[in-house]
Amino acid sequence: MRFASKLKLASSFIKTTLCHNCPTRCFTTTDQLFKLPANWGSGKSRRKLALLKLKYGEDYLKFTMSGSEAVNLEEILAPLRIAVKEQGDIVRKMKEEKAAEIDIKKAVTELKARRKALEDKELAFQAKDDKFDRSRMEDLLKRRFFYDNSFAIYGGVTGLFDFGPVGCAMKTNILNLWRNHFIIEESMLEVDCSMLTPEAVLKASGHVERFSDFMVKDLKTGECFRADHLLEAHMEKLSMDKKCTPEKRKEYEQVAREVDNFDQETLGQKLKMYNVKSPVSGNDVSDPIEFNLMFSTSIGPSGIIPGFLRPETAQGIFVNFKRLLEFNQGRLPFAAAQIGNAFRNEISPRSGLIRVREFTMAEIEHFVDPNHKDHPKFEDVADLNVTLYPAKVQLNGESPQVWKIGDAVEKGIIANNVLGYFMARIYLFLMKIGVKSDKFRFRQHLDNEMAHYACDCWDAECKTSYGWVECVGCADRSCYDLKQHTKATKVPLVAEKKLPEPKTINVVEVQPQKSIIGKEFKREAKAIMEFLLSFNECDVEELESALKEKGEMMYKIDGKSYTIKPNMVNINRCQKKVHVEEITPSVIEPSFGIGRIMYSILEHNFACREGDDQRGYFTLPAVISPVKCSVLPLSNNDQFKPLVKQLASNLSKLGISHKVDDSSGSIGRRYARTDEIAIPFGITVDFDSLQEPYTATLRERDSMQQIRAPLSELPGIVSDLSTGQRVWTEILKSYPLFEGQESVTKS
Amino acid sequence: MRFASKLKLASSFIKTTLCHNCPTRCFTTTDQLFKLPANWGSGKSRRKLALLKLKYGEDYLKFTMSGSEAVNLEEILAPLRIAVKEQGDIVRKMKEEKAAEIDIKKAVTELKARRKALEDKELAFQAKDDKFDRSRMEDLLKRRFFYDNSFAIYGGVTGLFDFGPVGCAMKTNILNLWRNHFIIEESMLEVDCSMLTPEAVLKASGHVERFSDFMVKDLKTGECFRADHLLEAHMEKLSMDKKCTPEKRKEYEQVAREVDNFDQETLGQKLKMYNVKSPVSGNDVSDPIEFNLMFSTSIGPSGIIPGFLRPETAQGIFVNFKRLLEFNQGRLPFAAAQIGNAFRNEISPRSGLIRVREFTMAEIEHFVDPNHKDHPKFEDVADLNVTLYPAKVQLNGESPQVWKIGDAVEKGIIANNVLGYFMARIYLFLMKIGVKSDKFRFRQHLDNEMAHYACDCWDAECKTSYGWVECVGCADRSCYDLKQHTKATKVPLVAEKKLPEPKTINVVEVQPQKSIIGKEFKREAKAIMEFLLSFNECDVEELESALKEKGEMMYKIDGKSYTIKPNMVNINRCQKKVHVEEITPSVIEPSFGIGRIMYSILEHNFACREGDDQRGYFTLPAVISPVKCSVLPLSNNDQFKPLVKQLASNLSKLGISHKVDDSSGSIGRRYARTDEIAIPFGITVDFDSLQEPYTATLRERDSMQQIRAPLSELPGIVSDLSTGQRVWTEILKSYPLFEGQESVTKS
Repeated sequence: MRFASKLKLASSFIKTTLCHNCPTRCFTTTDQLFKLPANWGSGKSRRKLALLKLKYGEDYLKFTMSGSEAVNLEEILAPLRIAVKEQGDIVRKMKEEKAAEIDIKKAVTELKARRKALEDKELAFQAKDDKFDRSRMEDLLKRRFFYDNSFAIYGGVTGLFDFGPVGCAMKTNILNLWRNHFIIEESMLEVDCSMLTPEAVLKASGHVERFSDFMVKDLKTGECFRADHLLEAHMEKLSMDKKCTPEKRKEYEQVAREVDNFDQETLGQKLKMYNVKSPVSGNDVSDPIEFNLMFSTSIGPSGIIPGFLRPETAQGIFVNFKRLLEFNQGRLPFAAAQIGNAFRNEISPRSGLIRVREFTMAEIEHFVDPNHKDHPKFEDVADLNVTLYPAKVQLNGESPQVWKIGDAVEKGIIANNVLGYFMARIYLFLMKIGVKSDKFRFRQHLDNEMAHYACDCWDAECKTSYGWVECVGCADRSCYDLKQHTKATKVPLVAEKKLPEPKTINVVEVQPQKSIIGKEFKREAKAIMEFLLSFNECDVEELESALKEKGEMMYKIDGKSYTIKPNMVNINRCQKKVHVEEITPSVIEPSFGIGRIMYSILEHNFACREGDDQRGYFTLPAVISPVKCSVLPLSNNDQFKPLVKQLASNLSKLGISHKVDDSSGSIGRRYARTDEIAIPFGITVDFDSLQEPYTATLRERDSMQQIRAPLSELPGIVSDLSTGQRVWTEILKSYPLFEGQESVTKS
Repeated sequence: MRFASKLKLASSFIKTTLCHNCPTRCFTTTDQLFKLPANWGSGKSRRKLALLKLKYGEDYLKFTMSGSEAVNLEEILAPLRIAVKEQGDIVRKMKEEKAAEIDIKKAVTELKARRKALEDKELAFQAKDDKFDRSRMEDLLKRRFFYDNSFAIYGGVTGLFDFGPVGCAMKTNILNLWRNHFIIEESMLEVDCSMLTPEAVLKASGHVERFSDFMVKDLKTGECFRADHLLEAHMEKLSMDKKCTPEKRKEYEQVAREVDNFDQETLGQKLKMYNVKSPVSGNDVSDPIEFNLMFSTSIGPSGIIPGFLRPETAQGIFVNFKRLLEFNQGRLPFAAAQIGNAFRNEISPRSGLIRVREFTMAEIEHFVDPNHKDHPKFEDVADLNVTLYPAKVQLNGESPQVWKIGDAVEKGIIANNVLGYFMARIYLFLMKIGVKSDKFRFRQHLDNEMAHYACDCWDAECKTSYGWVECVGCADRSCYDLKQHTKATKVPLVAEKKLPEPKTINVVEVQPQKSIIGKEFKREAKAIMEFLLSFNECDVEELESALKEKGEMMYKIDGKSYTIKPNMVNINRCQKKVHVEEITPSVIEPSFGIGRIMYSILEHNFACREGDDQRGYFTLPAVISPVKCSVLPLSNNDQFKPLVKQLASNLSKLGISHKVDDSSGSIGRRYARTDEIAIPFGITVDFDSLQEPYTATLRERDSMQQIRAPLSELPGIVSDLSTGQRVWTEILKSYPLFEGQESVTKS
């Protein structure tokens, strides 16, 4: 095919893709859809690149990287690495010198942009060796109904997906393995909490206030766009303009790279500065407004209980902390876990399963004494090797490295061994279900990336054609959530820790003077009294010194300000003998996005048969394969029917999911069909099966090797193979190899 | 305790119960809460009965049924049976004579009231032998966190429940068994669809229009009440008034019994007639208004996609019908299944897990050729005995009877053998997970009870202290849903059926005259054209004859009326040769309410140790027991620790959930604790375990028998026992019985 026709094909393909995937049409440029490295090409050539990438996946590099362009990778990366390190040093220095927060923020933004440029370049080069073809895989996923857009016959709703029989079985298998690997093996307390959540709970957790993205509205039509996406797309459009000067282009590209870090005000300024309009209508757009990503609803008929669909499953565990602690007979540490759906009303969902509006999570909250963050089983995993990308390494512009978990904890790279233990367990789980270790890393969050509640956080990332995707977060949430709910409900979410021996402690308490406060604040006195009584030692001491130094102290309660004067409170100091101390546990939280993990596994396991690009299939591990075994009669000869029925029934009895394919078509073609849905083993009943000794053949998907074994033994063999109790090479030793059926056609 | 103190206790208990469970305070009378038989006692004595029932559960009958009152059951029931039969005959006769629908409805309402009176009396008598104590069970469920009200630290939300570790594990086990029993064994296609559902889908399914209850609002405070509950409570209050005459009482009780069948208008009339006010404020209430029970939300940021949380999982399967049929290579029959949550915004949830706002369902849609409703495996279950309560038997006032499924299908009692097959499979499943067969029946819906889509429907009902509870519905939905979605989307949801030989068929088509219709109806012409083109043969013939006879035909399209005249259409008749015919499959739908099933199982398996009412426990079958095995060191002697750790690790390796209880307390007391959470097997490590031959004891929960077996063999034994591969009596034969630990206290 000539290049021109290829371009034409690609163009028409883009049209349909745009129509299909982006009903809000907020992407005007094609490379936005497929994330071309920002510094590759420009103007028309950049557009061509985008088209090529769209059509040929990562193979587009073949067209752009001819021999003369191919240079040593590290030679290209070296200056980028230096640029990152330079900026990393600046950030570190500013932090040491306690520079103004706004300046640090700016420096970090620049740092991230440089790191991204480095990483994009690395990815682009690696892609050359990677024959992965996303559109081919997506075609297969759709055709065999792994999953697909929900409500398609009604036009579909973006960001919602239905799992078909294959995807659903795969998901079930992953969740069951997860349950065994974490809940059963670690004796965790599993809970199953409501998705409908009243507003008060999510106010306390910070979601009502902070769980939002910025969006702009078309001032005439009301259509909504995600502000950062819109600005980024506009910048790329501007930079592709033929008349664009090199300086201007540099400026635009810089803005596009920094867009993730803009706050509301900066976003608004930039949108105005570059005169951004609605890409659909050309109308003016509003200033960016915060859009809360939770789905709201109303519980009960009167509409007086505003509620949301939970944005994460974790809060269900926190609000049950007291019951769970009691269930564990009051003892720390213990872990609770939950598998369930959560919801985020994304402004413009994209990237298939990666960013959706309804998704399954599996979350663990491990509650531990904040002063003893030790895991009793840490030694079991200390020698495990994993790829780590610590914050420091990122700041230095270096590459991720392989570490022993034990060493990383010892060197202080991983904050404590509970976090380390879970990272190891996460790694082992992901490998078991098919993530490839060379496309995996743990990336540590930089200080300013961390969520408001976390004090250390590592993301388990999988490399996919969308770049590195966060699949599991593993955060030390410290005591943030329990404290927030305690504050909101006045129910102390604490554990009691028995002291080795009773001790006498100094107590500092605030004693509000009821009558004076009552006189001064009237109806609001009660709230102020409660507020003061909830003070901990630090609060009291802060108040005491303020009263001494300034003669008053101001507090904000529910948005209103109140001034406390010395005559309103007494500060009491006394001694108490205590046998236990109350502690608010720290929480280590591994949080799994099941959809993202599934997508990564699918990409990592998509393969084509040598010499036949059309025969795509999935090399999923047998333990998560949707169906464990196919049963194929050689032909539709009636003689095979009772045998097939018996075999199917015996497989059922052992709990082995199977699929009988008695359709017409050669055995080879039917194998190809079972390969497509990742069935790891196939039993073929042929004419030899009809006579003593009754036997059939068993085929292994990845090697395509076959053996012949007695019919009576086959269900047991398949059962052992699919639960991992035996491996294929063992089977090969016990039974004769068989060759020849693949090409036999229907009789 | 004297009777007066009992009453006092009961009264104070009521207060807390009301506060806790009923924030909308829509129940003013206590017996409303606990469903006293309507015709038992009156006035003050009735109130006493209610209090007693509340306090003592079904034991309250002991107080009311002294020796002199105890009479032959059938003697009391006989007149009630006759009353039902009389009314049943009247209904049948009216139907035969095609009486006016409104009159039939009235007669059926009376019939149902009579049947209810009969059933209540039956239940009340049976309750005498039933020592079940609900409050004791509920206390245990709460204390050991099987499940509990969600967001309790925030004051709770009625109708929402969280499952704790025990309930959650039990639920997971039930769902896994369900998956094996139905999906794997029957090779069903499992799907996992979005809960968020756009409005259009639920409009087509009929939920937007019909899925509602009537409620009234307090005209001043806006507080909402379910109209039928309010009226019923008011009637009972009136009938308890001392000054109430016997005639009036009879009238009130009659209204209370019929309340379920009142339509909007009648409800409004009765509320006015009896001057019903808000039970909380005493204010006037509004006329009954329809309240849709779906939770609404808005998908996407612009608020232009109105959506709901799905009220059932079934629609997700129907909208995917095409993909699923294709997945099944175009062939019928096949079944799809889905496990997932659904949501109903109940106006006033009550009865614990029985009526909630968020719940897990497991639904199967079996698609079958409407002309061949045969199940290939029906013979496997034909001899199974189940208790049936057919519509006819209900009409005759007779009791349910045991039938062979095969006979019931043959006699036409069950409409077809697909329905029969699934009823048998449902029965087998429920027995496997612990439903007691003597508290189980299949009740057939009466004609006028059936949902708008069903043509035959049987409910699998479990007897609980709330009465008979519908746990599984098994309905023949015919082709209702697929046709509705076809109509709404114009996507034909049909299967092709190859004809034995090509046939020539007569086709009748309507050919709208575009120009004339355009001239006449202007902008609405397009909708009318589409409407006419969607006609099937019947529609065309109806139009043809109307045009012939009346010279015109009127249609309603989207609420507006249009008159079609003869010049606007041609009716074409021609012949076509066809090789396949298109059929809309019928759907047989078994639909499981998991929460209701769990609640029934808990009631059916709640037991107390002989002679110790305080030691409540659950005799759950091992396959669904939340934890399979406890591991108890005899004391906290350090020597036991490595043994316990090793044992726990070996149990984990076999995937056996277990709980180590090394707390202080005698072995007996710790066994009691494990009994409470239904752990079927307990291993105790004692001093004999420390020396060769290393052994430990194994205890079975229900019999409390113990054996002693080698430590190395115990995990295997427990695994076999908990998967049902071996039973306890077999184990007893192979290992020596052990006696004596239960009373050994901590050393």
